[in-house]
Amino acid sequence: MNKGTLALLIHGATENWSPARWKSRFDQVCPDRRVLLLPDSGFDPAEVHYAAVWKPSPGELAAFPNLRVIFNLGAGVDALMADGRLPNVPLVRVAVSDLTARMTEYVVLHVLMHHRQELYLRASQREKRWAPKSQWPASAISAGIMGLGTLGADAARALAKLGFRVSGWSRSPKEIDGIDCFHGQAQLEPFLQQTDILVCLLPLTPDTRHILNRGLFSRLNRSSPMGAPVLINAGRGGLQNEADILACLDDGTLGAASLDVYATEPLPPDSPFWTHPKVVLTPHNAADTDPDEISKYVARQIERFEAGGTLENIVNPTRGY
Amino acid sequence: MNKGTLALLIHGATENWSPARWKSRFDQVCPDRRVLLLPDSGFDPAEVHYAAVWKPSPGELAAFPNLRVIFNLGAGVDALMADGRLPNVPLVRVAVSDLTARMTEYVVLHVLMHHRQELYLRASQREKRWAPKSQWPASAISAGIMGLGTLGADAARALAKLGFRVSGWSRSPKEIDGIDCFHGQAQLEPFLQQTDILVCLLPLTPDTRHILNRGLFSRLNRSSPMGAPVLINAGRGGLQNEADILACLDDGTLGAASLDVYATEPLPPDSPFWTHPKVVLTPHNAADTDPDEISKYVARQIERFEAGGTLENIVNPTRGY
Repeated sequence: MNKGTLALLIHGATENWSPARWKSRFDQVCPDRRVLLLPDSGFDPAEVHYAAVWKPSPGELAAFPNLRVIFNLGAGVDALMADGRLPNVPLVRVAVSDLTARMTEYVVLHVLMHHRQELYLRASQREKRWAPKSQWPASAISAGIMGLGTLGADAARALAKLGFRVSGWSRSPKEIDGIDCFHGQAQLEPFLQQTDILVCLLPLTPDTRHILNRGLFSRLNRSSPMGAPVLINAGRGGLQNEADILACLDDGTLGAASLDVYATEPLPPDSPFWTHPKVVLTPHNAADTDPDEISKYVARQIERFEAGGTLENIVNPTRGY
Repeated sequence: MNKGTLALLIHGATENWSPARWKSRFDQVCPDRRVLLLPDSGFDPAEVHYAAVWKPSPGELAAFPNLRVIFNLGAGVDALMADGRLPNVPLVRVAVSDLTARMTEYVVLHVLMHHRQELYLRASQREKRWAPKSQWPASAISAGIMGLGTLGADAARALAKLGFRVSGWSRSPKEIDGIDCFHGQAQLEPFLQQTDILVCLLPLTPDTRHILNRGLFSRLNRSSPMGAPVLINAGRGGLQNEADILACLDDGTLGAASLDVYATEPLPPDSPFWTHPKVVLTPHNAADTDPDEISKYVARQIERFEAGGTLENIVNPTRGY
């Protein structure tokens, strides 16, 4: 197989994810391959064999008749799955240890913030009040992870090492040492009932859209040592019903929430999340991974594919992730 | 040996550390032993063989002529060491896994807060700014732990598991898997030079008083990916020069500080720490451990001592911890 051309389609640039930075990284890791940064007028779409994409527009990939593989430069492929004209070729999600480590940092940080009453402690500092409160041990708190893929399993293990009781829930059965694994619709209820801190790392699919709603929040542990259960969503904004989150924070169904993702991003200036005293908000940066690591991962996969090997982490289109 | 009487001297009560709560716990775990909660007028000081203390006044323990062992209900014994009339009997510090786990929670939480730019992110939320910044990986950050006793070693291991480069510095040589261990005055300089986040868990002794000062801060990594190095002190307030911390935060020698302990506690209302934008302040609650665990630990040690066994965690009066 000849060395195919790689086209980069990068939208939604940020300081860390600038198209120019991606181009320079891919040039380094694919020194003997043509790398195009789109838009670019000096090429024939028929010569593009690989596409590495971030937030491409619907239909944009249909322009390449000889595409062999699409690489998504992040973990979530819900936007691509919604593209009705997506070419019928393997779609690969990046799964690099750097991304996993960063997501675990986010999850451990936010679980510890709520466990250790950081919202209360920061308010006390602002009010100049020296007022320590009773603190429960980690062993009294059950962290429940929805989604036990690479990210969820790693976060679960890290929380267990810190002494939390950790359980997980996934579509299909999983086994992880030291983690109490639930699966399927039938086991959602018992999973939720014993969960004090709910961490959502699910993929967004038609089945999971708006799964984080009042019905689910009201089934979390009602006798939590924390007072009320806490939500942490670092999956996708489409997983959450935002009106329900706000109403549940206000009526005490939820004690607090850490949100990294939103129905609309960037989060609109008039969203009540910005100023809600029980919301810890981050700008979808839970696991902003390093272009160095990702470009190496993509280059390695293309080399292996051209040598007749198999691709890793191919998305199952029926399952949607 | 007959079952000796245990006297409890508990000062500085908080919600979680009320004298009545301690008395009820010790009554439960020493069912066949007399337990006195002082002050109490109905006893003879000569019958007291054990004292379990929290912040006793200087000279208070000299009232018991037949004391066999003193148990300090926390990890730091600096206040007792400063008592010129302290009876010459073994002084035992509590070392329960619950206390260690709580201190590790605090250290991991505060290291992650600074690593993940929480001060910036909270300010962005207050200002309704969606402005993700580049985020370095944990592998680019060196956390340096001063003090490698039970607490420091456990925190070091937990940080290493999250992917940080971790080093430690202690008075005497230590070996901990995966941790780069420095010791003694001669190795303080190389330890500091490569440290981005300095975590202080040293005991307070005449040698360590005010060790956290401008001279030390200015020797931390000047080319940190974080911009400027960060201080986390969860040891004792006496370890820090507070004027130096404030001046170093203001001139950029330090990027931020998490403080759990202070020269004067409770922290006076006029302390500039309360309102400093680069200070994350907690009210000496990093490792408020559970009276249940500690009372069981003390009861076990007394039983073993009366059976002719040895005491654990005896303070070395020369070393001061």
